[in-house]
Amino acid sequence: MATLTIPSSVPSPTEDSEQLRKAFAGWGTNEGLIIEILAHRNAAQRKLIRQTYAETYGEDLLEELHKELSSDFERIVLLWTLDPAERDAFLANEATKRLTASNWVIMEIACTRSSHDLFMVRQAYHARYKKSLEEDVAYHTTGDFRKLLVPLVSSFRYEGDEVNMTLAKSEAKILHETISDKAYTHEELIRILTTRSKAQLNATLNHYNNVFGNAINKDLKTDPKDEYLILLRATIKCLTCPEKYFEKVLRLAINKQGTDEWALTRVVATRAEVDMQRIKENYHRRNSVPLDRAVSGDTSGDYEKMLLALIGCGDA
Amino acid sequence: MATLTIPSSVPSPTEDSEQLRKAFAGWGTNEGLIIEILAHRNAAQRKLIRQTYAETYGEDLLEELHKELSSDFERIVLLWTLDPAERDAFLANEATKRLTASNWVIMEIACTRSSHDLFMVRQAYHARYKKSLEEDVAYHTTGDFRKLLVPLVSSFRYEGDEVNMTLAKSEAKILHETISDKAYTHEELIRILTTRSKAQLNATLNHYNNVFGNAINKDLKTDPKDEYLILLRATIKCLTCPEKYFEKVLRLAINKQGTDEWALTRVVATRAEVDMQRIKENYHRRNSVPLDRAVSGDTSGDYEKMLLALIGCGDA
Repeated sequence: MATLTIPSSVPSPTEDSEQLRKAFAGWGTNEGLIIEILAHRNAAQRKLIRQTYAETYGEDLLEELHKELSSDFERIVLLWTLDPAERDAFLANEATKRLTASNWVIMEIACTRSSHDLFMVRQAYHARYKKSLEEDVAYHTTGDFRKLLVPLVSSFRYEGDEVNMTLAKSEAKILHETISDKAYTHEELIRILTTRSKAQLNATLNHYNNVFGNAINKDLKTDPKDEYLILLRATIKCLTCPEKYFEKVLRLAINKQGTDEWALTRVVATRAEVDMQRIKENYHRRNSVPLDRAVSGDTSGDYEKMLLALIGCGDA
Repeated sequence: MATLTIPSSVPSPTEDSEQLRKAFAGWGTNEGLIIEILAHRNAAQRKLIRQTYAETYGEDLLEELHKELSSDFERIVLLWTLDPAERDAFLANEATKRLTASNWVIMEIACTRSSHDLFMVRQAYHARYKKSLEEDVAYHTTGDFRKLLVPLVSSFRYEGDEVNMTLAKSEAKILHETISDKAYTHEELIRILTTRSKAQLNATLNHYNNVFGNAINKDLKTDPKDEYLILLRATIKCLTCPEKYFEKVLRLAINKQGTDEWALTRVVATRAEVDMQRIKENYHRRNSVPLDRAVSGDTSGDYEKMLLALIGCGDA
């Protein structure tokens, strides 16, 4: 469930473009107006605004926003305004660069998007970077991380609900054996996690829990500092309960000394239109404080306003 | 260039369906009429005939053909009539089964189709088998073959012409080093072959040839009986000059004691609408005999007629 709120009567893309043009005009910038418009339009509406803006003023709205805004507020407005597939392509590309490398972001995009949406990201990646997503991920990663991440971003998982229980049992056993042997990069473990449908994987992991007495992620916690194991556990979390994964990313971002705006912005921009409602519920339950109050405590100004608008607490 | 020939004035799908219905009626089957219609319609036209036939007679045309025809003739008519993506999904699925397993067929589909067409195969695979293509390929293969085939079927290569010569040089060097070390399954070699665009790969392999003095496939011929190396060389051939690869498959199928109808049928059914003209030219040049004469010498009856019709020599 999304937290994005859209007014009951939405102005036309032409009116929105005119208002945005006004917000950029003169010496100052009307940030409030930018939030009022962009933070309350869905992906299809934002796309139309971008098209209309370009047709009417001969300028790219994203370029204009880039010129007018700065720092964290700029980043969230730009990310949010991008089409979801383009946004993920951009984030994934950024995550393969030396200074902003992040195996987490790559894994997150590969595991929490639908198969169709992940394919759209791969198409957007071709269009924007003249390369393939898996090509860049494979080139910029090595060793165990590459073994896991390349098949994850290349997957096109079946999305039906059908579950083969015989298979679930046999593959739970394979997982248990490889984990007992500490063979965390074993090709069978990678195969199961990167190719099976989410429904099938869920059945396999439930069976694992029932028969072997522990949730798989508990058995994968032998060395809490091992970066690969941390990513592997996060992968399993993303595939089985993404809202818990995102709750944790938000929790760590907010609790961190100095706030991790990079993570906070990413999660809000990518989930507001998808499952932010559930993430909020999980956050409240886990931290005994509502997400909007936590966000307010850690951020300020237009950045804070934009975050709150997107998580559905614009008036708070 | 295709060898498929379509009459200048094509009957409507309704007329074609009526004629096919007539061909199935009574005691015998009019195979000539089936060939006359189906072997001279393109994929879009065949699709419309299937739809119209189902709407008009409440029967699946493929089921009808299956009931009326048999052996090699049945197989080629069924494969040909299928939508290309469905046909590839069917062939790939067959290739993962125990009795009909074929790493070649999987590799061929992954490497000789366009990125978009390969993705269509993956979609058709979901729809038909309720699983993903890479899931079945990963499950049914092991070891070195799995390492190569899973990324091949999962790839969505960039299809632009852009070439990065610096990269081509550095990756030609990586390929040469791994091959010199006989590390034929080295992850860098697999990465380059399975993720780079065909244009980029071509530049890399040309550079390899220029600098190291041999075509890469010559350097990969250290053990002519090694099944993995044979598949690796075929992969490179499919990625760089598919018409030569298919010429060889046809040559081996025809020269084989007893003819390999399975391969002959597959190549004709999958390439007639794509590049069979070039394959024919290569065949003639390499074997000093035209493909149609070679096919005629090795096959007979309706199967022969269908093959000749599809390779554009129906009147020969």
